[in-house]
Amino acid sequence: MRGDNGGPLDGVRVVDLTRVLAGPFCSMVLADLGAEVIKVEYPGRGDDARAFGPHVQGESTYFMSLNRNKKGITLNLKKPAGKGILQSLVKKADILLENFRPGTMEALGLGYEELARVNPKLIYASCSGFGQTGPLRDRPAYDLIVQAMGGIMSLTGAPGGPPTRVGSSIGDITAGLFTAIGVLAALQARERTGRGQKVDVSMLDCQVAILENAITRYLVTGELPTRVGNRHPSITPFAVFPGSDGYFIVAAGNDTLWEKLCRVIGREDLLGNPLFATNASRTENHQELLEALEGTFSTKSTGYWLERLQEAGIPCGPILGVDEVCRHPQVLAREMIVELDHPKAGRIKVPGCPVKFSETNRTTTDPAPTLGQHNREVLGGILGLKPGEIENLERDGVVSFS
Amino acid sequence: MRGDNGGPLDGVRVVDLTRVLAGPFCSMVLADLGAEVIKVEYPGRGDDARAFGPHVQGESTYFMSLNRNKKGITLNLKKPAGKGILQSLVKKADILLENFRPGTMEALGLGYEELARVNPKLIYASCSGFGQTGPLRDRPAYDLIVQAMGGIMSLTGAPGGPPTRVGSSIGDITAGLFTAIGVLAALQARERTGRGQKVDVSMLDCQVAILENAITRYLVTGELPTRVGNRHPSITPFAVFPGSDGYFIVAAGNDTLWEKLCRVIGREDLLGNPLFATNASRTENHQELLEALEGTFSTKSTGYWLERLQEAGIPCGPILGVDEVCRHPQVLAREMIVELDHPKAGRIKVPGCPVKFSETNRTTTDPAPTLGQHNREVLGGILGLKPGEIENLERDGVVSFS
Repeated sequence: MRGDNGGPLDGVRVVDLTRVLAGPFCSMVLADLGAEVIKVEYPGRGDDARAFGPHVQGESTYFMSLNRNKKGITLNLKKPAGKGILQSLVKKADILLENFRPGTMEALGLGYEELARVNPKLIYASCSGFGQTGPLRDRPAYDLIVQAMGGIMSLTGAPGGPPTRVGSSIGDITAGLFTAIGVLAALQARERTGRGQKVDVSMLDCQVAILENAITRYLVTGELPTRVGNRHPSITPFAVFPGSDGYFIVAAGNDTLWEKLCRVIGREDLLGNPLFATNASRTENHQELLEALEGTFSTKSTGYWLERLQEAGIPCGPILGVDEVCRHPQVLAREMIVELDHPKAGRIKVPGCPVKFSETNRTTTDPAPTLGQHNREVLGGILGLKPGEIENLERDGVVSFS
Repeated sequence: MRGDNGGPLDGVRVVDLTRVLAGPFCSMVLADLGAEVIKVEYPGRGDDARAFGPHVQGESTYFMSLNRNKKGITLNLKKPAGKGILQSLVKKADILLENFRPGTMEALGLGYEELARVNPKLIYASCSGFGQTGPLRDRPAYDLIVQAMGGIMSLTGAPGGPPTRVGSSIGDITAGLFTAIGVLAALQARERTGRGQKVDVSMLDCQVAILENAITRYLVTGELPTRVGNRHPSITPFAVFPGSDGYFIVAAGNDTLWEKLCRVIGREDLLGNPLFATNASRTENHQELLEALEGTFSTKSTGYWLERLQEAGIPCGPILGVDEVCRHPQVLAREMIVELDHPKAGRIKVPGCPVKFSETNRTTTDPAPTLGQHNREVLGGILGLKPGEIENLERDGVVSFS
């Protein structure tokens, strides 16, 4: 059952109790890297994300994207038989992932201490809104709440405008990435010590971590970092500009590039202006400068400008919509859009894995499981349960096949 | 030299050629987890980030935040002696990280093939703007450019407004996180195969990966995801609201919470309004609904409302500035602000590691190196060079001590 998908984590087994986004993003990354992820869902209902539209043939696109390459079983963890099966699985697993509210696993009798007794080599990772400790540990969190409390919204948006949500759920996603890093580091520690351990990741902590130098800058200077919008705070012009049909980026980081830029867009007049003579003065007078450039850029299309800037060797780029991202030659060349065959939804496309290995790329992209799809394979194949035993479990509501 | 910092990666040695942000963020995470990171900088000048202000006693806060827990040596990789020393270090290392433009390492004679001959167990990770392959491989990228080309800016900001840069450099940071995941996965593969390999991460690919379900949603429905600003696209009210003195979040995800919310803020009148009877109708009529709530919320402070909402069990939260993040009790309880002693800059604070282990947390936070600080320790201690040999290297401009 384990092995042979070619990924670097081939042979690593993950029991995955996570739901919705942060945890499933973590187990998606591990699965993309070849880990055998056994997703455990509540019988009959499954992961809440199965309800998130749009659906194709009854299958959630949201769920299918995040849960590719995983196996799926159902298990009622409140029933003793369900608990027993989970413990048997844990005995044969390397990693357990959960993103319930702190205390939930303990209340189920499935806390770290209990499961470490079953398997001392187990790595048990919890991903929660605020972490397993601290005054807010019991509070629920959503992506929007941790983006707000972690400071990144205060830095995103136009100067003078309202704080702005990042348009992708990075509150969840960065927590998923750090959790993946945590379990992989714990696997490495286990090679040395022979023992597993508990890994505790908080969505809020991860938001703090990605503020990086803003934290130290503030604590050293006492100056509050604020929203600077779409320009670089200390390099000019390094900003978003409007063409006649959309927006694009120009990143002219030094005097040579500035001079080239003025010539290629026919604004040699700006070169003589002492307000714009150095990067420091350009930054000080950014408002006048950006307005002058916007006046010129808005007369022609973004494609027109990007071609000329590119030719002149001035760093620049388009601002792409999701449609353009999906058909961009570089994105396609890197296999960042992957097609897979789903048993119900048919052929669908999902984003690819952004880590490319010279020797150990996962060779297949398997579809997300339908609810309970791998019950027989996992309960029979890994745990050795007989067909009749599995039928009994179904009859007792411990597992379900849809 | 190796060992005993208590982290899960204790004993793992990283030779780190990376500069500025994406690569150094990756090696920062590895160092926070206990890896011995030997940062290699150009003699006399060092990492470009050393020039990024503000500075304290001549030391860059930006650099100090990102390079804590690392050792620093200088090495001119264009000189044969510098190259030889790098190869000797690689022989004794587990991981090499680089974020030059593709082709640079090969031109130096330090490409993967060359270094794998020196150490077949080496994991060699490259983090670049567009990756080692594809039509754009040779182009330079900045955070702003990959945020723009990766789609996230098209999803960030107010509906009808311009695309908006995320206020933290997530183009760099997510690439750093995925590179860390890549090298840890390759370490795991090496336990099985005994061999190292090359890991190739592109900043653009990572932006595509964090769009997650937006990709599949678009490809299935053909509907282009756009900016929805500060509200949830399908749950209402789940949005940013203005108090009299700032903004805050209310996340009332179902009818029960909606009813509680109306009562607690004294807007029972909204409960009788058929426009707002269900989540679907609230979402359809979100403009009227949000305006009605804003009218009430703007009359009192955010603190006032958050206290009442919290008491009523309605998910909510403040939108914090970096100053408030740095003193938030939950952030402090989680040790997400860490103090360290820098030999020149004195006591400074940096963000902590957001992965907490039950058994193997790194026990110290060491300051970022001054330029060439660990030349003697690394060249003498690890490679066994004699003091006279190191002096000769300095005389020949192969290393520098500042």
